[in-house]
Amino acid sequence: MSSVTNLHAPKGLEGVVATTSKICYIDGDAGVLAYRGYDIHDLADHSTFEEVCYLLWFGRLPNTEELKQLKWRMAEERKLDASIIYRLQLVPKHVPAMDMLRTLVSTLSYYDPEYNKNDHDANVNKAIRLTSQISMLVANYDRIRRGKPLVEPDRGLSHAANFLLMLNGEAPTATAERAFDIALILHADHELNASTFAARVTAATLSDMHSAVTSAIGTLKGPLHGGANEAVFKILMEIDQAGVDPVEYIKGMLAQKKKVPGFGHRVYHTEDPRATHLRQMSHDLGKSSGNPKWFEYSNRIEEFVKADKKLNANVDFYSASTYHTLGIAVDLFTPIFAVSRVSGWTAHVIEQLDDNRLIRPRADYLGPVYPQKYVTIANR
Amino acid sequence: MSSVTNLHAPKGLEGVVATTSKICYIDGDAGVLAYRGYDIHDLADHSTFEEVCYLLWFGRLPNTEELKQLKWRMAEERKLDASIIYRLQLVPKHVPAMDMLRTLVSTLSYYDPEYNKNDHDANVNKAIRLTSQISMLVANYDRIRRGKPLVEPDRGLSHAANFLLMLNGEAPTATAERAFDIALILHADHELNASTFAARVTAATLSDMHSAVTSAIGTLKGPLHGGANEAVFKILMEIDQAGVDPVEYIKGMLAQKKKVPGFGHRVYHTEDPRATHLRQMSHDLGKSSGNPKWFEYSNRIEEFVKADKKLNANVDFYSASTYHTLGIAVDLFTPIFAVSRVSGWTAHVIEQLDDNRLIRPRADYLGPVYPQKYVTIANR
Repeated sequence: MSSVTNLHAPKGLEGVVATTSKICYIDGDAGVLAYRGYDIHDLADHSTFEEVCYLLWFGRLPNTEELKQLKWRMAEERKLDASIIYRLQLVPKHVPAMDMLRTLVSTLSYYDPEYNKNDHDANVNKAIRLTSQISMLVANYDRIRRGKPLVEPDRGLSHAANFLLMLNGEAPTATAERAFDIALILHADHELNASTFAARVTAATLSDMHSAVTSAIGTLKGPLHGGANEAVFKILMEIDQAGVDPVEYIKGMLAQKKKVPGFGHRVYHTEDPRATHLRQMSHDLGKSSGNPKWFEYSNRIEEFVKADKKLNANVDFYSASTYHTLGIAVDLFTPIFAVSRVSGWTAHVIEQLDDNRLIRPRADYLGPVYPQKYVTIANR
Repeated sequence: MSSVTNLHAPKGLEGVVATTSKICYIDGDAGVLAYRGYDIHDLADHSTFEEVCYLLWFGRLPNTEELKQLKWRMAEERKLDASIIYRLQLVPKHVPAMDMLRTLVSTLSYYDPEYNKNDHDANVNKAIRLTSQISMLVANYDRIRRGKPLVEPDRGLSHAANFLLMLNGEAPTATAERAFDIALILHADHELNASTFAARVTAATLSDMHSAVTSAIGTLKGPLHGGANEAVFKILMEIDQAGVDPVEYIKGMLAQKKKVPGFGHRVYHTEDPRATHLRQMSHDLGKSSGNPKWFEYSNRIEEFVKADKKLNANVDFYSASTYHTLGIAVDLFTPIFAVSRVSGWTAHVIEQLDDNRLIRPRADYLGPVYPQKYVTIANR
């Protein structure tokens, strides 16, 4: 490149401020996460996922009437076109759940009543619609592959309780509902994480909401992003099946120079504030379900890794044992992440489009020196 | 954010060097584009799309035997699972072609023999496979929606000629084949354009090739990226139907403060080197087909905009008249872009994964001051 104005960024754009945003505040040194200025601890302790959705999409907390209306609209959108159900039935058994979700969310655009609109209001509608539909896709997919009948959504239930009902065929306990609701709140947004950034890059060409959310799902799929809690639970299962001591197992991993999933975070240099709540939920659910072992394994691993490697548990570490205790299959952990994060993705797309600029960085060329002499193929 | 090490980037990451790359060299001031150091003019004049694919994927030009083998493999991969054809038939008529392509490419992962592999060699195989399959998806989709029988691929034909055969039902003339082959060469790669950047962001979580290419397609869909040549042709059609003078029409657009599509480029400050070839092809095809009007309209518009607005035609401007003369429907112009650019997307994904780091920038928080006091809903 010839221009002298280029700004060389660290690898992976680490520490590069790529945009302004009014959605999510993170202080990685102080361990603070806030949506629209509201501390995640307040939201986890006092709000609901629907209230957080309102906050993310509309920029402020709703009053009673506004929340009622949003809940009504989210319940209203709990429906899938018959051909979407049919396509769920066509998914071959071996397909990774995130490939299903990426494909089906892309397909949802076929049936979106505002597929050819990209204005602010249409995108708020799509945010509501996609949030309801993604929860249905994940629950219905799991029912279909287990050969069980689909469960009708219940308009009287919260987003969290309705999801667990559609997944498990029975309404959750109050503890389970609250635990899942908090999990949805904690995962709803996290600033420019890779999937949200991908959604904004896609939206910034003035593409559309479904394209942006499809990009986000494909990005979330990767084990460096959404896949970590699956990896955590696989370790817990191996420990359980082998009957070994959790700390010895982790020592063995470290001796083989393996990275322990669920620890450390690019942004937080102290405890991930979401881990605080997930640890508590994992504990409470283990106790109320009469099966505390997954929490206990996790807790011993956390104490060891913190002491030995000075690494803090992140959002993924305790979500593994939490989700398992809620009856969620391990390969649905990342799709569940999407069930929540779609609220943040869509909020970011709306924000991006409200003041858009194409996201198009440059690369530093380090290949063969220009110009290479072109030799005809007969002479190569 | 509290850290002082953050680097504030211009909006849209303009001028920010986000990564190193050995694939594409651009000098925007000198109007130079080169793949792996080879000037785009040499490649357009002397090579073929298959040779360029080899260059992008393997880093050097092939010898005769290597090119023969790659062509054999690309021909071998010209097949789609029966259920993919079935899903093409299920696409409702109103669906934008790019939504179809995004969804179907995502679905291709279901049937990829290496769906659970993400190593270098598997991704080279996927690059070859996706390049063959995307050309088939676009051609078959167009046949199906026109109610015409599908055309079997012909192993003896080049990628360019085979595509035109499958699309139009007859083998192209030598002029048409060469024009389309050059169009494929010119669109094959362009450094960190938005769709390629999206593909790298997706791949960098260690997701997979199909996720990355799906993100790229959703990103290319936007009118600020892939959609511009469609917009150009719609203008040419309006001029033709209204029987107005092309320059007067454009003056009318400018008087209404409308942007004329197909002009200007974030990276090039001189003539887009791809426009040089597309202008020539548009001219030659117009002449050989006995229908030079689309070239003539375009040429008059280009001269006026260059003189009046000091803006150069970009890659999209003359591709509109070129594609139309090749018998390609206007809503396939962007899918055709993907038929070519998949070669570059896949090369970039392979490069990203060979030396990966998660792409996760930061945002500058400008929302409500932290901490906002959480007031219970009854008191709002």
